[in-house]
Amino acid sequence: MSLPSLSPSKRSAVEPFLAMDVLSSARALEAAGRSIIHMEVGQPGAPAPTRVLDAAREALADGRLGYTEARGLERFRRRISRHYADTYGVEVPEARVLATTGSSAAFNLTFLAAFDPGDRIALAAPGYPAYRNILTALGLEAVEIPVGPETRWALTPDHVEAAHRQRPLKGVLVASPGNPTGTMMTPEALGALVEASRALGLWFISDEIYHGLVYQGRQETALTFSDDVIVINSFSKYYCMTGWRIGWMIAPEVLVRPMERIAQSLYISPPDLSQRAAIAAFDATDELDRVKAGYAANRALLLHRLPAIGFDELLPVDGAFYVYASIRRFSNDALDFSRRMLVEAGVAATPGPDFDHQRGNGYIRFSFAGTGADMEEAMTRLQTWLV
Amino acid sequence: MSLPSLSPSKRSAVEPFLAMDVLSSARALEAAGRSIIHMEVGQPGAPAPTRVLDAAREALADGRLGYTEARGLERFRRRISRHYADTYGVEVPEARVLATTGSSAAFNLTFLAAFDPGDRIALAAPGYPAYRNILTALGLEAVEIPVGPETRWALTPDHVEAAHRQRPLKGVLVASPGNPTGTMMTPEALGALVEASRALGLWFISDEIYHGLVYQGRQETALTFSDDVIVINSFSKYYCMTGWRIGWMIAPEVLVRPMERIAQSLYISPPDLSQRAAIAAFDATDELDRVKAGYAANRALLLHRLPAIGFDELLPVDGAFYVYASIRRFSNDALDFSRRMLVEAGVAATPGPDFDHQRGNGYIRFSFAGTGADMEEAMTRLQTWLV
Repeated sequence: MSLPSLSPSKRSAVEPFLAMDVLSSARALEAAGRSIIHMEVGQPGAPAPTRVLDAAREALADGRLGYTEARGLERFRRRISRHYADTYGVEVPEARVLATTGSSAAFNLTFLAAFDPGDRIALAAPGYPAYRNILTALGLEAVEIPVGPETRWALTPDHVEAAHRQRPLKGVLVASPGNPTGTMMTPEALGALVEASRALGLWFISDEIYHGLVYQGRQETALTFSDDVIVINSFSKYYCMTGWRIGWMIAPEVLVRPMERIAQSLYISPPDLSQRAAIAAFDATDELDRVKAGYAANRALLLHRLPAIGFDELLPVDGAFYVYASIRRFSNDALDFSRRMLVEAGVAATPGPDFDHQRGNGYIRFSFAGTGADMEEAMTRLQTWLV
Repeated sequence: MSLPSLSPSKRSAVEPFLAMDVLSSARALEAAGRSIIHMEVGQPGAPAPTRVLDAAREALADGRLGYTEARGLERFRRRISRHYADTYGVEVPEARVLATTGSSAAFNLTFLAAFDPGDRIALAAPGYPAYRNILTALGLEAVEIPVGPETRWALTPDHVEAAHRQRPLKGVLVASPGNPTGTMMTPEALGALVEASRALGLWFISDEIYHGLVYQGRQETALTFSDDVIVINSFSKYYCMTGWRIGWMIAPEVLVRPMERIAQSLYISPPDLSQRAAIAAFDATDELDRVKAGYAANRALLLHRLPAIGFDELLPVDGAFYVYASIRRFSNDALDFSRRMLVEAGVAATPGPDFDHQRGNGYIRFSFAGTGADMEEAMTRLQTWLV
């Protein structure tokens, strides 16, 4: 008897996250003895702050690490609430705080709690590919709106209103500072977009994961403009806690309980150790600002060296730790280019199509979150390879 | 101008996981100074094994915890693969192993990668509520089949074939040992169900999270019977690593890449520290078997004391660390009963409707994963409260 065939679901045909595939290839080359400079993944070269490591050691010594409440430990939520008063002067009650397993979980919970299958969510292209992939897997439509220098690579009320007229939207998702562009919206531009979205009855999701990593301009949380927005953040970037998988979100009251219910089943709770350690991260500003100063130096280096090597048309890098660089002088196939760069020059970076289907083949994203020495070495390798 | 209202999605109307709500209430009572015995959540009272804590300390000393590959560290996947050879004599190539953020992530990835919206998945009632809730949130239909003593609380080929005839199924999900029942299928019963599901072209998902915690009968992995099954497991139960949020699954080749793609966007990677620590858990058998001996003593205590207090009709507890007990002598409203038991007797347990809509109001689930002293104290409190 021949058995019926079994196959994957249609919705599992999401695109691979090329950055993670590059990481995989890079690790394979390293396992074979090659030296690779990692500029493909957006993760700090520095370890978590000493205070965080100390808090983690204490948690281990304390013994049992268990499930916490689905929204996270209460003292953790209170500390997050205080962070908003301290940093932005915004009142956020603990009752609207949810600790999450990285910002990834926050996005997933937001998409599930705010949207039903078929709903349309506007986002900027280029943008973070996981947004589109998670939306697709959950039966939602990512409405990618191409943005460029004329709006400083950000969505505007005009963009959103036009897309909504075409076919009604249900939400708008914005990242500022952005990934891969590193560009940041002005407080005025952000406020106007929040207001326009609210007036149209759209959920506004603000990805603030790169807050704290700002080199020019003023960062503002979307919570300054409305309590009806969903703000997502994480300890993976400024706080150097990538592998700890811990983040948080602030949600409008009406979404908190639905999100909590879904989180109970889908995550049970965020990792206990990471929660206890992350509480300490808010008091590690001195150490973290030294790390940030390193990024600022890396940024200056890349903005100086990359154009000389031939990566021109660099975007303004207001924040985050990325340079989204044009490769049009060398190639119009970013995937092929980044593969060759990895194998021939030993430098890993992420091909543009991860971030932008239409125009991405002309770009690659360099992360400058590594050490200064690595960045210097990478520039030397690229110089030797390309010039 | 009055603003349009914003509301949660329809699909977010999943049921709360009552066990987590009970945990929440219990924590609130404790914060107010009350002593509460926790029998509501399925988590070990013992801390992670010494070897695991040592490995975690080493990982912290090593400094940077970063993203790993989406499927987890290679040496972790290899160790999991070896576990199948050692424990079951089954060959599982590392290429079919995925490390996951707890079994929760494994279920989510399985449901997304194997099923499309509207697909029907058969499962036994009573059963673990998160199955149903995750399925619902993802637009899938949980086909709950009531089981009872006549099949030892397990699905049979007859059940599955009948449900499939009614309206085609797409998958079957089985947990053995089960939650909340603690009952285990015989190897023959499991093999027959795998075969029947495969013959109908259904994905077979085997939740083996309670393997290692077996008091009578012989545990067998579904992988013994077919390579086409999805096997899900975790370090939260036998390995005492609940709060670490780390688990794994073995998938058929055809699902690995779809699952990996979704995991890249939805989780990025499981927690790095937890992966490095969990590798050591497989070599902590001596310590873990001592913990298990404690459960066995707790099990004996509860099976002796509960009927004397009036919780009769106990199910056979082959494995896991639960007693699913009838409360019909006292109440036909399990939610009210467990609330009163918490407040009046200081014992937290989970009301049956978490596990079974139809018949759950006659049951509560006691977890006996706590310490022996706690179990003794709980029996004394219940005796005083009820007798």
